[in-house]
Amino acid sequence: MALVVQKFGGTSLADADRIRNVARRVVETYRAGNEVVVVVSAMGKSTDALIDLATQISETPHPREMDMLLTAGERISMALVAMAIEAHDVPAVSFTGSQAGILTTADHGRAEILDIRAFRVQECLDEGKVAIVAGFQGVSPDSKDVTTLGRGGSDATAVALAASLGADLCEIYTDVDGVFTADPRIVPAARKLDEVTFTEMLELASAGAGVLMARSVEFGIRYNIPIHVRSSFHDQEGTWVKEETMEEPIIRGIAHDDSEAKLTVKGVPDQPGIAAAVFEPMGVAGVNVDMIVQNISSQGVTDISFTVPESSVATAVEVAERVAAEIGADGVDVEPDIAKITVVGAGMKSESGVAATMFRILSDAGVNIEMISTSTIRISCVVRGDDTQAAVEALHEGLIGAES
Amino acid sequence: MALVVQKFGGTSLADADRIRNVARRVVETYRAGNEVVVVVSAMGKSTDALIDLATQISETPHPREMDMLLTAGERISMALVAMAIEAHDVPAVSFTGSQAGILTTADHGRAEILDIRAFRVQECLDEGKVAIVAGFQGVSPDSKDVTTLGRGGSDATAVALAASLGADLCEIYTDVDGVFTADPRIVPAARKLDEVTFTEMLELASAGAGVLMARSVEFGIRYNIPIHVRSSFHDQEGTWVKEETMEEPIIRGIAHDDSEAKLTVKGVPDQPGIAAAVFEPMGVAGVNVDMIVQNISSQGVTDISFTVPESSVATAVEVAERVAAEIGADGVDVEPDIAKITVVGAGMKSESGVAATMFRILSDAGVNIEMISTSTIRISCVVRGDDTQAAVEALHEGLIGAES
Repeated sequence: MALVVQKFGGTSLADADRIRNVARRVVETYRAGNEVVVVVSAMGKSTDALIDLATQISETPHPREMDMLLTAGERISMALVAMAIEAHDVPAVSFTGSQAGILTTADHGRAEILDIRAFRVQECLDEGKVAIVAGFQGVSPDSKDVTTLGRGGSDATAVALAASLGADLCEIYTDVDGVFTADPRIVPAARKLDEVTFTEMLELASAGAGVLMARSVEFGIRYNIPIHVRSSFHDQEGTWVKEETMEEPIIRGIAHDDSEAKLTVKGVPDQPGIAAAVFEPMGVAGVNVDMIVQNISSQGVTDISFTVPESSVATAVEVAERVAAEIGADGVDVEPDIAKITVVGAGMKSESGVAATMFRILSDAGVNIEMISTSTIRISCVVRGDDTQAAVEALHEGLIGAES
Repeated sequence: MALVVQKFGGTSLADADRIRNVARRVVETYRAGNEVVVVVSAMGKSTDALIDLATQISETPHPREMDMLLTAGERISMALVAMAIEAHDVPAVSFTGSQAGILTTADHGRAEILDIRAFRVQECLDEGKVAIVAGFQGVSPDSKDVTTLGRGGSDATAVALAASLGADLCEIYTDVDGVFTADPRIVPAARKLDEVTFTEMLELASAGAGVLMARSVEFGIRYNIPIHVRSSFHDQEGTWVKEETMEEPIIRGIAHDDSEAKLTVKGVPDQPGIAAAVFEPMGVAGVNVDMIVQNISSQGVTDISFTVPESSVATAVEVAERVAAEIGADGVDVEPDIAKITVVGAGMKSESGVAATMFRILSDAGVNIEMISTSTIRISCVVRGDDTQAAVEALHEGLIGAES
């Protein structure tokens, strides 16, 4: 007997038929002798519909009320899933984030999980029942207000809950077959991975692979909970995300992210403290800076380029222009249409020359590299947005190849 | 400065425009210097949509999960109303039934309010903010599960909360102009009442006047909270429901109820204990018996007729047939198509002959009376369903008349 946490996303719960399908899967796992905790997102596009309603009411809805509103979404799906499971004569009880003891910070819309006190869920399992828990939501112990965890929040709930309950594994059911070597919409030859390591998944997620958010992987790493990312539409195995894998290929996969923009502060006096002068105010203004590149100094002045999420561009430009004036720089350039292409592989640690191969492949494909950033198991290049398709295809062919 | 509880029903909250309209009204009351608590139902027909979804999933959804599901409805409307009020720069905070301290029995779908511990609501008012409270819902302190109060639950929340907070008055905003002398859809000459007493309203509500449920009136009586039933679509005064009214007419209004069915146990041996033998098992089976009439005994046998809600007919027939067999009665007749016509007036206490006048009017209108039941300020007659219109019209004309 194992304790399994199964998480189902909105697409898997979009209507009554799909909810019945989810229930059938949960019941199978339960009848096979397992303890089952189910974590659910809101049905289909219902969260978007609620957001739309809120923006009709107010241009700047209060974040506390926005969370109160959005948490209705999982409340609906969790009750329906519980009903669908009980229709199989399997006892099931649904719990809100608050009832499941998901304690978070009070940062509405982007709360962080502080602690999980899942007494009621544990009790429910001890009574031989299936527990259904609302993903994406929690409660702030200070304000006693309900909170939401922001994007990817339901996955985070699932993995954190699995950790807290000492689950044997966490299954993330989704509308794709697993983690792929590249986005199959861009690279038709991309293939599903059977396994990736936690750190590879963390790098892929941070680099734009949308299938699993980085924060969920972090919980998996910290508590060593194997995560199985798989399709809710069939029974084939998906991708196992875990500490160690059978093989460690040099390149596991390629991710791309076109949701960032590049800013360049031009003609910066090349002297100590300049980087801090630019990036400290960015942090204060809540701008998440991703890649940073400083050019070689020429005649005492240099350029500093960095990428920020598209949603932060307006703030970032405002801050950068103020700083540029203060430090006597020439001005600020913005390039909104860029893409970050990242290759990830745990085998890269012990292999040299991967970066050079990557740059050669991009060059042969006629793709110009604007920025470069590396870590032990990752190389990221910023290219023009138009070049995304060509870059990802060429790198997939040259570094990964077709099905072996 | 007064403390006002304002309750808005689903029709008044059906879309973003109407929610903005509700907010405008709340803000006006607040800006006039009052403390305001707003109690809301779910938007428009959203509760029906959730029920429909549940029945697609399961024929017999678990009552606990049904309540979890349905409480999402007010959660959505309360958050949106709070946002709409804050858009006027008036601070507003929404509370679920649980957060507002609405403690109930654990009877899912028809919970009774046990106590109200509205500390958070009071604190919110003390901070100069508008409090929005989800109607219809509460929490069972024993099971810690959310509950719903059943039909008319939001009105009950409003009046009970008004009592608990020591409010000066409770306004029930609805889609009609107030309480009428008869249902205006049946009697075009029916007119809006400016005032009714609590006991009159209680009798009218119990007799089928849908505008305000009996349980809300009971809270009004117990804590002497004046209730103002009025339209959310314009600013005209509606109907005040309170302890004493300026005048006490003999007949205040006429209500009808076609949601009951009549059962007759035929050929019952006329001996002591027979009524108990019939009605005790009904109570055990959860059937709410309304009117009971026992015919005059003829040759040692008699007929017992009674009315039950249409939703309980199947159970009631089952019980009645079992009992009939046990006590040696001849059998059970069911008449589903009946209507109960009730005239109510506090002035009836000191006036004789009203019943006789009522029977004469019905007889002149060609309406046959099948059952009669009276209280101090009420006379009810059961007639054939087909006769509803004729009976109500004739009684309105004969007892109340046109606008004076």
